[in-house]
Amino acid sequence: MTAAARELHLNIGLNTTGYLEPAWPQGSARIADINAPAFYERIARLAHRGRFDALFLSDHPALRLGPGSRPFHTLDPLILLTHLAAQVPDIGLVATVSTTYNSPYNLARRTQSVDVLTAGRLIVNMVSSFNPDVAANFGSEPLPPRAARYARAHEFVELVKQLWTSWRPLEKPAPDGAFWDQTTGQPIDFAGEYFSVRGPLNVPVSPQTHPVIAQAGGSDSGIAFAARHGEIIYANILSRAAGRAFRAKLDAKAREFGRDPSKILLVPGLVPIVAESRAEALRLHETYSGARDEADLIAGFTRQFGLDPATLDPDRVITAEEILPDPEQGGALGFLLGTVELLRHEPLTPRQIVRRSAGNHLLLLGTAEEVADQIIDLWQDGTVDGYTVQPPRNPEDIEIFVEKVIPILQERGVFRRDYIPGETIRARYGL
Amino acid sequence: MTAAARELHLNIGLNTTGYLEPAWPQGSARIADINAPAFYERIARLAHRGRFDALFLSDHPALRLGPGSRPFHTLDPLILLTHLAAQVPDIGLVATVSTTYNSPYNLARRTQSVDVLTAGRLIVNMVSSFNPDVAANFGSEPLPPRAARYARAHEFVELVKQLWTSWRPLEKPAPDGAFWDQTTGQPIDFAGEYFSVRGPLNVPVSPQTHPVIAQAGGSDSGIAFAARHGEIIYANILSRAAGRAFRAKLDAKAREFGRDPSKILLVPGLVPIVAESRAEALRLHETYSGARDEADLIAGFTRQFGLDPATLDPDRVITAEEILPDPEQGGALGFLLGTVELLRHEPLTPRQIVRRSAGNHLLLLGTAEEVADQIIDLWQDGTVDGYTVQPPRNPEDIEIFVEKVIPILQERGVFRRDYIPGETIRARYGL
Repeated sequence: MTAAARELHLNIGLNTTGYLEPAWPQGSARIADINAPAFYERIARLAHRGRFDALFLSDHPALRLGPGSRPFHTLDPLILLTHLAAQVPDIGLVATVSTTYNSPYNLARRTQSVDVLTAGRLIVNMVSSFNPDVAANFGSEPLPPRAARYARAHEFVELVKQLWTSWRPLEKPAPDGAFWDQTTGQPIDFAGEYFSVRGPLNVPVSPQTHPVIAQAGGSDSGIAFAARHGEIIYANILSRAAGRAFRAKLDAKAREFGRDPSKILLVPGLVPIVAESRAEALRLHETYSGARDEADLIAGFTRQFGLDPATLDPDRVITAEEILPDPEQGGALGFLLGTVELLRHEPLTPRQIVRRSAGNHLLLLGTAEEVADQIIDLWQDGTVDGYTVQPPRNPEDIEIFVEKVIPILQERGVFRRDYIPGETIRARYGL
Repeated sequence: MTAAARELHLNIGLNTTGYLEPAWPQGSARIADINAPAFYERIARLAHRGRFDALFLSDHPALRLGPGSRPFHTLDPLILLTHLAAQVPDIGLVATVSTTYNSPYNLARRTQSVDVLTAGRLIVNMVSSFNPDVAANFGSEPLPPRAARYARAHEFVELVKQLWTSWRPLEKPAPDGAFWDQTTGQPIDFAGEYFSVRGPLNVPVSPQTHPVIAQAGGSDSGIAFAARHGEIIYANILSRAAGRAFRAKLDAKAREFGRDPSKILLVPGLVPIVAESRAEALRLHETYSGARDEADLIAGFTRQFGLDPATLDPDRVITAEEILPDPEQGGALGFLLGTVELLRHEPLTPRQIVRRSAGNHLLLLGTAEEVADQIIDLWQDGTVDGYTVQPPRNPEDIEIFVEKVIPILQERGVFRRDYIPGETIRARYGL
């Protein structure tokens, strides 16, 4: 692989005990690990050994209290990633932050501080928050409607970008001997619909100027936001056809905003289930999904989309229209739309659908060879630029991926064998 | 020194190039150091070698733009301290945070995350922010008046304490095999005048339950806030008499709130200037204050308190009433009140006054022996519990303090020779 070759990008999710909640009893992680520094340090070192582009932390600022649920978002992502970056070199960091429940100055300052301290390893995943439980932790007002959240998110990011570049310190004392020249830090005097901020930021530009901006929403508002601001898109893409349609939509929107679509990379979620055989991987998929068997997986799909279990034939092709969610509904619309988009481009039965995703992300299962083949397949024709790998269990499935899948990708010449010392995450992604 | 002996506590300030802005040309720190991780790592290791209780970062979220000013508050304190704590063991961390310009849930979460990741090394210095430049970075509203800021600060801290203790996870799976028991995380349903927060926090109690609370304001509102919530008070105390009066006022207030005053420790600011002789230290004091000579120091005092330079006799005793600031004025009232309180208990001339403080904090100058003697003097009768040392220059004056003053304090048996492994900062302070 030459320096100019197109690279496969792989981030790795490290939230708590793994991406699939029901999988925890099959793993070694225990309650105490959820907030144990050593647990995350071990995962980060493992990820470094696997040469992943970046560590990925999703987030929402609330503790889930439902029966049978598990704390999935606990330690503050920027704090945890700062801790890990101080101990593990090279690897990038993706911190998810809310544009609805932060003030732009504080958020710009914290993220730029991390980017300065890590010499440019930070990616900020800007989300507008979709959960009423989160809203209840930030006042008595309900969650704003999606349109208002995205309008605010747009202004938020515009403002944060101005703050990130508002102070470029002198390298040397000024000719008059002044320790610094305050003319290099300029007020931005931002006055928008949602925010009024004088600036400048009191943290200077970082070695990569400012953090890379990631985006995760899949609704129309989310895609417009991605096209306007996103550099790394953590989308929910379940097939080549769906990926190409998403890419086309995103590229058209990006051009509308005068952006070069080649500077927007797709690294959708990927849940890998690697086993000695495909049959074994199918069984693990059921177990990790909390299902007794395939019929139970199908029952879960029926529930998620509000279908009638009495009339649903698991072997009859289902159309996108039959599962279309209400666009005005709450929750993470983008997650459900992934399956809708899958069906728009490919006729599938419920029995087939349930094997295409896990936790709403692309499911790739089989032997290490089979998983590696599928990863390369969607990457090599440019449908995706890589993946954000969400291991069903932490740390076991990261370990399996690093030991079995990564070496195949390296053998095939599509994935790095080592980091370039001092490279920023912006340079690693070719942005 | 036995385990039960009363201990001298010493924090060390590490903001940028040192506490006294005009001192920078006399030091080795340069513009690039202000945001260089290696600069702070070096200081933190030096502080660890000196066995300081904790690293102290003051803060305000704005970049100073005045001519001749220097960026003094840049990298986010919680982010910088997390970075340092991941590389340097044992030493505690004091992060200054604004109760006016943060949301309680986010702030509770970030601070508790640091406390969990550092196994209980965090002290949070809660300030209400006093600078209009800060207000301009958080909306178009002016800075709220002091009373409103402290009313909000009180509610803020009440709420944050509830959040900090709202989730105590199970140690082991519940009897039914559940990974966690959601009954151990309880909503707090806080509804106050300023905030409404459901909770619980999504970060659990830390090894020291939650961060220690420090407080820094010296106005009457500040003292009431300290008496109600403070555990470590970073006050501005310029003499034994002033310290005892402050202590008495604080203790009386604390008892009103039903608190045990022995659980509130005074660690006022201290600017040490250590030289081979007292005469040399006096000269350094002038240089580090940006003064040409003693007369120039006196001129600075005259300006700060708005006195008439034409009529001021530097050798006539001045009274507290002559320099009393308007209690309704903006700015950090506590800073000016330190000098007022000094004069209330001791007749001093301007020539004497200017040698009692630097940067508004207690100035101790002379040889290492003389400085150590003065440190012990105010500590041994309980006037103070220790100091927050503010070195005129970073890193030189930390180095001098560690190499020359600390060994004397250790010889005298009043300061630790080593850390107790795994000790929380709460335990170190005997709280």
